[in-house]
Amino acid sequence: MRVAIQGVEGSFHDLVAHRWFKTTPIDLVTCETFSSVFEALEKNQADVAVVAIENSLYGSISEVYDLLLERGFSIVGELPEHIHQQLIGFADTHLEKVTHVYSHPVALNQCRTWLDTYLPHAERVEHHDTADSVRLIKEQDDRRSVAIASHRAAELHGLTILHENIEDEATNFTRFLIIERENRVVEKADKASLVLRTDHTPGALYRALGIFAKFDLNLTKLQSRPIRGHVWRYQFFIDVQATPDVLSQAIEHLRREGCETTALGCYRQHRDEDLN
Amino acid sequence: MRVAIQGVEGSFHDLVAHRWFKTTPIDLVTCETFSSVFEALEKNQADVAVVAIENSLYGSISEVYDLLLERGFSIVGELPEHIHQQLIGFADTHLEKVTHVYSHPVALNQCRTWLDTYLPHAERVEHHDTADSVRLIKEQDDRRSVAIASHRAAELHGLTILHENIEDEATNFTRFLIIERENRVVEKADKASLVLRTDHTPGALYRALGIFAKFDLNLTKLQSRPIRGHVWRYQFFIDVQATPDVLSQAIEHLRREGCETTALGCYRQHRDEDLN
Repeated sequence: MRVAIQGVEGSFHDLVAHRWFKTTPIDLVTCETFSSVFEALEKNQADVAVVAIENSLYGSISEVYDLLLERGFSIVGELPEHIHQQLIGFADTHLEKVTHVYSHPVALNQCRTWLDTYLPHAERVEHHDTADSVRLIKEQDDRRSVAIASHRAAELHGLTILHENIEDEATNFTRFLIIERENRVVEKADKASLVLRTDHTPGALYRALGIFAKFDLNLTKLQSRPIRGHVWRYQFFIDVQATPDVLSQAIEHLRREGCETTALGCYRQHRDEDLN
Repeated sequence: MRVAIQGVEGSFHDLVAHRWFKTTPIDLVTCETFSSVFEALEKNQADVAVVAIENSLYGSISEVYDLLLERGFSIVGELPEHIHQQLIGFADTHLEKVTHVYSHPVALNQCRTWLDTYLPHAERVEHHDTADSVRLIKEQDDRRSVAIASHRAAELHGLTILHENIEDEATNFTRFLIIERENRVVEKADKASLVLRTDHTPGALYRALGIFAKFDLNLTKLQSRPIRGHVWRYQFFIDVQATPDVLSQAIEHLRREGCETTALGCYRQHRDEDLN
């Protein structure tokens, strides 16, 4: 199974890909950008892609929403990951001698309070990737620098977690989607993602949401995105708890109300027990 | 009038600040980040701030939405700007001799087709600011490099627009907000921005939108953002065409339905004739 991810080995995407496929052996296809992840799937260089879609603190990754609509691939699953950041170095690195902390700016920012408290004098050095900053320290055999990354990055490069879970916010989750090129029936699907375009009369969104309410379908997410070429017009990316048959009835009603919809996939809503 | 903007002199924020204040002389308070713009207003280093809130192609600037809610300042106006990119150099710069194009990565990306067609062999050099790339070329007296920036940046640095409006997409607009520290009555206000938090029962958003519909209020924008500390819970930033008195009635109804709202300001919806 060839799995395209954004980032390098040891990244959170890597970690989630391995969680999703559990015991199935996978070959990672590492890509620099989200756009090249979708490209890899398009060109059949990967069988499946794992992409972050939103973070519980920072919100949606708009680029991924736009790529989903543009490419017409199919969401076949979702997986949230509790984001923990680890302080990584050599086993014999002494914190009081550390002069530099390497990581991606987002990770450095997520650990600001910890760093201010325990490494106030160490310089923070921005690197393009969390996992790669671990590789860098290992390669340079550098005991005066530490990196912030996932536990997987520490394992991968054979370094030690000096301090566990140093992130400031306890509730930092990222939700990932599993994407395939072709639409297919997913067993026990009970959630769907779609894009809704209403006409632009007042109350159009209200009426559209009324159809979901009529079918007793709960929306778990509603994300507006601009419609290209139509200034200040928006489409709505919707996640809804629905089985495929009920959803298709609702979509038929939406169509009669003058709404256009694009299906992005029916899949099984994540339940923690599915992975335990 | 001290006006805080993100970016330097000659940036689109500068251009919009001057459009908004027309004949009123202004002192720009240039800030590196959106966060420092809000900081400048907070610390009374500026009387007013001009910040981009959304682009018609790329969508909302989430950071600004979050800062608006966090800081509790007041929106007193809005101004959309048609984004035009200019190819800027010396009057005697010859296009066929140009080897480097400097600009912010977003601007380089917005002009990709033009660059591929007319400067296919020139290297694109990413710079942190569009206007500053014009300054750089001027300072280095460099006729083998050109910059992409606003016409204001060309004027400011005394360089020449070699090609006008080289952006790929004709419909690239950015909407800017004018923000003040204190809430105040804006004359002829007919639009408002607010944040809506519903309870988390199914259909809660639908029922809330029903209240706007009941009062015949048209929503021009609905943007969801995560609620910090509540994983996968969202609040909605809403722009609504409403006079302050009708809006306050609607808000009272929303409150009775169990919704919390935070006012972000009542202001006058932009009309082109207001500026002509």
